[in-house]
Parts: sequence; structure tokens; C-alpha cells
Amino acid sequence: MAERAALEELVRLQGEHVRELKQQKASAEQIEEEVAKLLKLKAQLGPDEGKHKFVLKTPKETLTGKYGEDSKLIYDLKDQGGELLSLRYDLTVPFARYLAMNKLTNIKRYHIAKVYRRDNPAMTRGRYREFYQCDFDIAGQFDPMIPDAECLKIMCEILNSLQIGDFLVKVNDRRILDGMFAICGVPDSKFRTICSSVDKLDKVPWEEVKNEMVGEKGLAPEVADRIGDYVQQHGGVSLVEQLLQDPKLSQNKQALEGLGDLKLLFEYLTLFGIADKISFDLSLARGLDYYTGVIYEAVLLQTAAQAGEEPLGVGSVAAGGRYDGLVGMFDPKGRKVPCVGLSIGVERIFSIVEQRLEALEEKVRTTETQVLVASAQKKLLEERLKLVSELWDAGIKAELLYKKNPKLLNQLQYCEEAGIPLVAIIGEQELKDGVVKLRSVASREEVDVRREDLVKEIKRRTSPPLCIC
Amino acid sequence: MAERAALEELVRLQGEHVRELKQQKASAEQIEEEVAKLLKLKAQLGPDEGKHKFVLKTPKETLTGKYGEDSKLIYDLKDQGGELLSLRYDLTVPFARYLAMNKLTNIKRYHIAKVYRRDNPAMTRGRYREFYQCDFDIAGQFDPMIPDAECLKIMCEILNSLQIGDFLVKVNDRRILDGMFAICGVPDSKFRTICSSVDKLDKVPWEEVKNEMVGEKGLAPEVADRIGDYVQQHGGVSLVEQLLQDPKLSQNKQALEGLGDLKLLFEYLTLFGIADKISFDLSLARGLDYYTGVIYEAVLLQTAAQAGEEPLGVGSVAAGGRYDGLVGMFDPKGRKVPCVGLSIGVERIFSIVEQRLEALEEKVRTTETQVLVASAQKKLLEERLKLVSELWDAGIKAELLYKKNPKLLNQLQYCEEAGIPLVAIIGEQELKDGVVKLRSVASREEVDVRREDLVKEIKRRTSPPLCIC
Repeated sequence: MAERAALEELVRLQGEHVRELKQQKASAEQIEEEVAKLLKLKAQLGPDEGKHKFVLKTPKETLTGKYGEDSKLIYDLKDQGGELLSLRYDLTVPFARYLAMNKLTNIKRYHIAKVYRRDNPAMTRGRYREFYQCDFDIAGQFDPMIPDAECLKIMCEILNSLQIGDFLVKVNDRRILDGMFAICGVPDSKFRTICSSVDKLDKVPWEEVKNEMVGEKGLAPEVADRIGDYVQQHGGVSLVEQLLQDPKLSQNKQALEGLGDLKLLFEYLTLFGIADKISFDLSLARGLDYYTGVIYEAVLLQTAAQAGEEPLGVGSVAAGGRYDGLVGMFDPKGRKVPCVGLSIGVERIFSIVEQRLEALEEKVRTTETQVLVASAQKKLLEERLKLVSELWDAGIKAELLYKKNPKLLNQLQYCEEAGIPLVAIIGEQELKDGVVKLRSVASREEVDVRREDLVKEIKRRTSPPLCIC
Repeated sequence: MAERAALEELVRLQGEHVRELKQQKASAEQIEEEVAKLLKLKAQLGPDEGKHKFVLKTPKETLTGKYGEDSKLIYDLKDQGGELLSLRYDLTVPFARYLAMNKLTNIKRYHIAKVYRRDNPAMTRGRYREFYQCDFDIAGQFDPMIPDAECLKIMCEILNSLQIGDFLVKVNDRRILDGMFAICGVPDSKFRTICSSVDKLDKVPWEEVKNEMVGEKGLAPEVADRIGDYVQQHGGVSLVEQLLQDPKLSQNKQALEGLGDLKLLFEYLTLFGIADKISFDLSLARGLDYYTGVIYEAVLLQTAAQAGEEPLGVGSVAAGGRYDGLVGMFDPKGRKVPCVGLSIGVERIFSIVEQRLEALEEKVRTTETQVLVASAQKKLLEERLKLVSELWDAGIKAELLYKKNPKLLNQLQYCEEAGIPLVAIIGEQELKDGVVKLRSVASREEVDVRREDLVKEIKRRTSPPLCIC
């Protein structure tokens, strides 16, 4: 142990020597030589202690300082052992921590899981304390805007396939916002708070937002007016091009980078066939601290007819953006892994789908059962069990009523309620003849099918249409 | 409000009157009459307050008193608001609470979700503080043993399809255990603790278990010996029949019920074709308090050859049983909903599968990507984006490297690493000819496919074999 301590001290001194050399602007060779010595000494110490230990603890510090004002909603969990723990607030911060801890520099994944907020639940609007999030992220150092475009493509694909109505994806860039604030004369210290005022423009008119900026947040009225000229604009790629020509904005390095990337993004989105769904919106700001570049948010569009009906709680149903600094916050050496991702508002979408189905009085099937094994006569439980087992073993989704002698009417009624399309009926005669009576619940037609053909016939009648187009 | 209070008082008095009548052994008609009056008065009070409120809070009391000794592992969560909360310990108790709160009397469902234990984690054995459980349960009042048999069928189906080796399902019944303890002379107060001694028989020899019963738990040696004669027996349906003839056991009502049900269960399991996987084992006791009838546990069987190799942590991989009293504990009126279910040890099974794959040096694909869109030449990013989008829109799982000008070699290497079977290569010539070069990664064969046939060809080459047998 003494030998080890001495070696450790040596490594430390050697390290200091390297730092000194650097300060003295020593030659690269000198530094390299010293680093080589250092590594050799370190090797003598043996493998890093704790390197092969699996560190599972992800306590409260992981979550603090990532969400800005929303941090108050983090659900703390006070361990009896004295560790300060919290339940995860979203899936993004834990994803970044996972990348840093496992030294992953490159991954694409989706994740559906529960997160927790110490908020006031509002059932009807799909707001809970414990709820699902569904995230997709692409991490890694890549050429600009290619993964960003893929995220937007995926967002559109998901929203299209859910058939929850027409939608629009607002796009902006944190760098454009910051550049715009700078050229309008907002003091650096007020960027964040003015940003949150701007974010309200989707709900309240400009005059109110301006009042907040000037009255509450102490911005000069002429500064607010300059912001107003920008943030009330939205449009397509032509707005990007117009702003690239803006005499003031184009002089700001950050804004210029943001606008250049947006132009490229629109090119890729056109190739992906979704440019018509995208709106460059200078008022989109997004609340979370960790975004560094492109940000986006999908909103449902309500037609005039719909607006007159039951309010559907229309609003943001998916959102995301680029967060290039988050992984580095968890890496001991601050190594960055650029990331871009999106989150689908599953709970919100579920309430919308449920309300729509309720309005349409559409019945949702809660099972995928293809066939109910039934019998018209008593004392055939054993035969029903045998048949249902045969069907299960052949991969058919089958059920039977858990009764010794159920009435045929009850069995048929069960199919109607559960939306089961077929009934396989057996009786003494069918067993003797080696057949099963296959009944269509919808048409009430019945045909005798030879027992050995039953699986094939059920599959034929209930499989989704085969397509190798 | 005063009127309401008066009515409530009336209802209370009327209720007392009914109880008095019952004590006086009043006639059924008299009681019915009084109950009718009571219900009428209650109706005047209007609907139950809170009936339409959605009670979301499921605090600590839900979890206490259900798990016996294991309760110390419940993860508490101390809310700043002062509510005592806990993280769920398993999926069974929350399921029972859900049924009671929503007044469901009849449901069949599976549930895969996280549960939490304040235990010492042991990574290599797949034991964590936060881990997945996978449960299947059938709730409802049905004819005996039909849902129980289905649970065992499902357990066998799952374990078979996972291909984790040969297994055996031990089956017993809490009523047989209790009856056996009674006729052996175990005092009622010691049933539970003697039960936990018996449960150790799968790990330690009978002599040790007996020592614990006599030495630690103060059982008379002759009582322990009587238990020993029973619990060292295991076998098939013939053992059930033998015990049904056992002069003492057959005199105990509980044991007789349990044995009768087991006999029926074996009949059904024979019809389901899984009787050979089942062993009636009188030493199976299961720890949790809430079981009331049939209990079962699946264990992996190690061959002699396997036992010599890396220890695979063989043991219980699935378990469950009947719990007819749990829902009633959450119902204000104690209404019972009989339940039977099973839990699959997903984390344990995952470690076994992972160890097996490691031993076989088999590589596991982490994506389902069918094709990589690639190019051999520079400046074709736009064309790659267009093609990948076409493929996505047609439902093909496709990827491209997020680089403007990737090298073909790097693109092919990526396919090798990720196990992607096909590469769709485009170059100037292919674009001019309206074709795509489709390359098989395994065989390195390349063919030109007309662009309009590409989707069909990729589907043909990568779809699972179509089967409508």
C-alpha cells in the first residue's frame, strides 16, 4: 500500500510537471515525452479502481440545473439510507447521462417510459404526475442537419399515422433567437426571461407580450418593438432567405449560423416530402435550458367546424430540438456528444384519440382474439379445451368461456361485445364427423370445416391482407 | 344541509335496526323489508359523494400488509407535501387495487412494467433495485381450474418459446399445505413460519429444515417428522390420487378441496398437452401472503454437462398462483374478485439469455434495418436522402450514414457491424439508367434493380417467410 501511495504521488507530481511545461509553452515533443512517462507510471498503478465497478446510483444532482424554472416539478425521493434521489423528470437528461457514463459517442434509439412531475394533475387534459413519454434521439458528430431532418421526418410520420388531424411543425433555432435579442438591444442577462415572454405569442396577442416585456421585465419599449417586428413573422424557406438578407441580423454570427442551418434543413425536408408541414416561426422559443440549436414543436390545426364542437385541448403534441451541450455536462472531461431528438406527447395524443372515438361512438377492440371456441351442448368442456389448445399451438389467438356448460347465446354475445370475428363451434355431431362449425359473427353464416383445415381457414379469414407489393 | 344531515342520521338508525333484527334472528323477509327501506332512504340522499371523483392517490397503505416479511423492501417516497408514498413493489397488488377502485369483476390482461425494491443489487444475478416484471392475470368468478390451467399453459408457452433450456413447473396448493400442517399437529400460530421453512427444501436437505423447525421454531420433533413424510414427496397426478386416499389428509376439508382441484387441474393440463412439464411438489410454499389456492413455480433444469460449465444462476424463472382475497382488501364492502396469475422473471431470463449468447459468441442485432442507402461517389447526399425517404414511405426499414460524402467502404463496414443484410447503392450511372444496385452484404453479389421494383425486391429478400399453412 505504501508503494502504491508513493507511485500515486509520483503520478501527481509528473502531472504537475506536464501542466508547468504547457504553461511555459514547451515544445509538443517535450510534453509528449512527459505524458508518455506519466502514462507508464499510471500503468504501474494497475487498472483504475472502480473502472469495472458498475455505478448505478443516479441521484438528484443528475437532474438539477437542466430544466430551468421547471425544476420545481422534479419528484424527490428521500431514501431512508440518506441518499438524495429523484424520479426522472424526462427521458432526455437520463439519456445524456447514460451516453456520458458509458462513453457512447454514437447512437440512435427510441424509448417509451414513465416520467414524474410534482405538478397539479389535470385528468381531462391528459396531465398526470406519473405519465409516459416517448422519445427518439440521434447522438453523434455528423454532417449538419441530416439527423435533424430525420427527426422531423419521423415526427411527421408518427403524427400522420395516428390520424389525429392536420398538423403543423413550427421550427426555429436558439441561435437565431439569441442573435435577434442581441441586435435588438436586449441585455445578455435578460435573454432567458425575454425568451419566455416570446414563447407566449402562440396563446396571447403581441400587445400583451410587449406589456410583459416592458412593464414586468423592464425592457425599453423601442427594444420590445424591434423584437416584435421579428417574432411576429413566420413562413417557409423564403422567410429564411429574406432574413439572411436582413442588414442587421445577417451581421450577427450566431443568427447567421442558425439561418444557414435552417436553409439546409428546408432543402432536406423538401427531399423528404414534408416541407409543406413546416413553418419557420420566430416566436417559437421552447422552455428548457438545454437546447442549443434547431428547436421544433408540432401543433394540431383545428378546422372551423371542429372549433365549434367540444374543445379538443388542441396544442403541442410533439416537440424537440438539438442539445449539443448536455452530454458534456455529465462527462468528467466535458467531452461533447451532439444530440438531436424529439418527444411525442403520448398522453395528450391518447386523450385526443379517446375523445374522438367517444364522439364517433366507435367501439375500440381491446383484444386481438381471432376466434372463440364454443359449444352448443353440455359436457363438452374437455373438447373445447383440447380444441383451444390446438389453436394456440398453431399460433391462433383463441379464447373460450371459463365455464363448464356455457349457453351458446352467451358465447355469441361475448363475441359481439369483444369484437371477436369468428366462432368455432363443436357438438357431438361435429366431433363424430371430424368437423368444426365455423361461424362468422358479423354475417352469422356457418360452414363445416374439416378439423385438419381449421387453422388454415381461420388464418385465411382473419389475417391482414398479404402484401409483398 | 340540515335536511341532508337528518336523512343521514335516519339511514344510520335504520342500519342499526337491520343489525338488531339480524341479531334477533329475524325472518329473512323482515330483514329484506328493512334493507329496502334503507336503500330508499339512501337514494334520497342522492348519488354517493366522490363517486365520480377520480381518486388517483395510491399511497403507502396500499402496499402495506400484503407481502409479509418482504415488506421491508418497499421503496418509500417521502412527498414534500407530507403524503406518505411508495414505489410499487410488484404488479399484483396494484392490479388488485385497480380492479377494486374501478369495480371491475372480470378481466384478463398482461402488464410489463418497472417495480422497485430496497434490496442490495446484484448485477450478475440480474437483481436490481429498479427492474421489470411481466405479469399475466385472469380475474373473475369462473368454474374451477379453467383459468388456472390457462395460466400454466401460458407459462409453458413463454418458457418454450424463449429457448432457455428444459424446465419443470412445480405445483402445490396453499390449502393442502395448511391442511397438512393441521393434521401434523402444527399450532395455527406457526403455520406461516413453518411454511417458510418448508419453502427452503429446494435448496437445503430435509435434516437442516427439520433442525430449523425444531431448534429455531420450537416444533415438536415428531410433528416435524410427520411434515417431513409429506413434503419430501413429489410426482404427478398419481400422487394427488394417493393423497386423496391418505386416511388423515383426506379428513381435512381444506386439503381435500385443494387435492380435488389439483386433480381437475391435471386433467386440463393433460388436454393442454403440458402435463409432462408439471410436478406436484408438496414442498413448494411461496413466500407472499396473498396466495389462497393453487401456487406454482417454474425452474430451469440443468443437464449434467451444463452443471460443469459456467453456473447459469439456475432457479425460479416464473411463478404465480391464485389470490382470491386480495381485491376484497381494497373494496370498501370487501367484495371479492377471485384472481389467478403468473409473473415471468424477465431480468433473470435476460441474464441467462445474455450469458448463453456470450458463451456462443453469437452477435445480437440491435436494429431491424433491412437496407442501407449508400453511394460510391461524392455529391450524392440529396439523392440518398430522396431514396431513403421513398423507402421509408413504402414501409422499408432503411438507414443512411449522416455524412455528406461517406466512403463506400465505410458504408459497407457499417452494414457488417450492424448486421444490415442489404445495401442499395446509387451513382451517376444508376441514376441515369433509372436503376439501383442492390448488394447482398453476406454474398457480396450485386444486381441492378429498376427503381420502381426496388421496394418489392427488398421486401422479397428480407421479409420473414410467408406462411398461411
